Amino acid sequence: MVKPAYVAVDWGTSSFRLWLIGSDGSVLAERRSNEGMTAAAATGFGAVLANHRQAVSAPADLPVIICGMAGARQGWVEAGYLDVPAALSTIPFAAVRVPDVAADIRILPGLAQRDSAHPDVMRGEETQLLGALNDLTDAHSLVCMPGTHSKWVHVADGLVTRFHTFMTGELFDAVARHTILKHSIADAGAVDGGSDAFRQAVEEVIRNPTAATSLLFGARSGALLNGLSPADAKALISGTLIGLEIAGALDAGQPGAPVVLVASGALGSLYESALDCAGVKPMIVDADNAVRAGLAVAARSLWAL
Amino acid sequence: MVKPAYVAVDWGTSSFRLWLIGSDGSVLAERRSNEGMTAAAATGFGAVLANHRQAVSAPADLPVIICGMAGARQGWVEAGYLDVPAALSTIPFAAVRVPDVAADIRILPGLAQRDSAHPDVMRGEETQLLGALNDLTDAHSLVCMPGTHSKWVHVADGLVTRFHTFMTGELFDAVARHTILKHSIADAGAVDGGSDAFRQAVEEVIRNPTAATSLLFGARSGALLNGLSPADAKALISGTLIGLEIAGALDAGQPGAPVVLVASGALGSLYESALDCAGVKPMIVDADNAVRAGLAVAARSLWAL
Repeated sequence: MVKPAYVAVDWGTSSFRLWLIGSDGSVLAERRSNEGMTAAAATGFGAVLANHRQAVSAPADLPVIICGMAGARQGWVEAGYLDVPAALSTIPFAAVRVPDVAADIRILPGLAQRDSAHPDVMRGEETQLLGALNDLTDAHSLVCMPGTHSKWVHVADGLVTRFHTFMTGELFDAVARHTILKHSIADAGAVDGGSDAFRQAVEEVIRNPTAATSLLFGARSGALLNGLSPADAKALISGTLIGLEIAGALDAGQPGAPVVLVASGALGSLYESALDCAGVKPMIVDADNAVRAGLAVAARSLWAL
Repeated sequence: MVKPAYVAVDWGTSSFRLWLIGSDGSVLAERRSNEGMTAAAATGFGAVLANHRQAVSAPADLPVIICGMAGARQGWVEAGYLDVPAALSTIPFAAVRVPDVAADIRILPGLAQRDSAHPDVMRGEETQLLGALNDLTDAHSLVCMPGTHSKWVHVADGLVTRFHTFMTGELFDAVARHTILKHSIADAGAVDGGSDAFRQAVEEVIRNPTAATSLLFGARSGALLNGLSPADAKALISGTLIGLEIAGALDAGQPGAPVVLVASGALGSLYESALDCAGVKPMIVDADNAVRAGLAVAARSLWAL
């Protein structure tokens, strides 16, 4: 039977995931909950972790590697930022050890771009990058990690040189829930990345990016004048925001650098379709696998496993 | 003593304004309340109007001219849309009369751009345009009416040929209240259009429009890394959204067409400063005066005053 070697934790703002990893690298057990930073800050990070460790019968002295918001200022122990340009391989060694606990528990740092004109930060995505690194065989890659705050990262020979955050996911939620457009998309289901409405919106905003906030209003005027359906109105909003992000990321990228899309499920399909509209065929890396692989790289760097 | 000639009403989504106008065109009395369409739909449009007429002692048979959301489908009586291209002078004659009431009460229509690729609608702003028309002496003008849903209108020889709605004001509210950026702007006061933070944000997004939703995130990363103040973070968000709107409107405009800014107060100052960053010196028309002047043009067109 495979012996447990370490515990890996991806601790986001609103979600918590834990894996018990065996000495051969296999996943022995997994836990998911909504005890993210916000919830854990109220109940105690140590207690949340202890409960889940116990649930998978992890020995009390098993080391733990953590990435994400547990290292934020409002998190468990602040893990700071590594400044770019930063070699991905150095990230594990900048982890902060949680004091006054029996086990060796370490929290990985984020990355910071300390640029007065274009400051930027990430926390959690650096671990996905570390996990995807094995797939980044090109000298230069532009890595897209879509989400609430999408990250586009320039990686060259294992070095993160620059990155940009686009607020696409959070803007979509704010627009869909808190503006007049909510009436035009009522009860629409998930956006279909293959739909004409989505692809046309992506193509239109790439052609005409300064019109972005006007194109969004087309979800309402289209519903009023042209009978645009709620599903198509929602696809229009999503396509406009994702298309603007892709246009901006490619504008800021090195022309011709291969694009790596680190994503899973429905969001991955939307971005794959939107990138196709922009004439880009990305290499695809599964985001769930990438974060676990990144935590594994960190664990192997820190401990003799 | 000047005799009252008609009642003019600007009936928005959330606000109600009424003026009692004399036979010489002067304002004899004014009323403002928050009984906009949303509130009046619950209590009854007729009752709201009757109360305010009584408060200014308007004779029961005095005619009433109304613009705005009272003419929307969810309003009092649907006043439809006039399709562009539309001569501004024909707007009054498309007004809809409220049935089954003692007085002659008419509601002005909105304007619709029935274009499958760029459908658009306005309701209320057409009356401001009508009022500003006397100031539109140039053969071609690009008229900016900033607000929750900013309108940019192409007017040529009294004809509205085309217009675009930008969701700037509503997006600002959604971003400032319902995204992570709310933490970076906590307790900041009104945005100063003359501040470096505002002007730099406008200039940056004009130079780099595809980066818009990434520049917004700078309000957070700037606060985390560079000590950006809440006031400057709020100015950055406002400048980015207004700058993107101006870039889009100018891109869609006829090069060199004079810009007319129909606005009042603080919002007018913000747009004047942002337009200055884009190298545009607009002619300025007061928005409050414009809507009253537009209602007066409509009243004189409809009735022998």
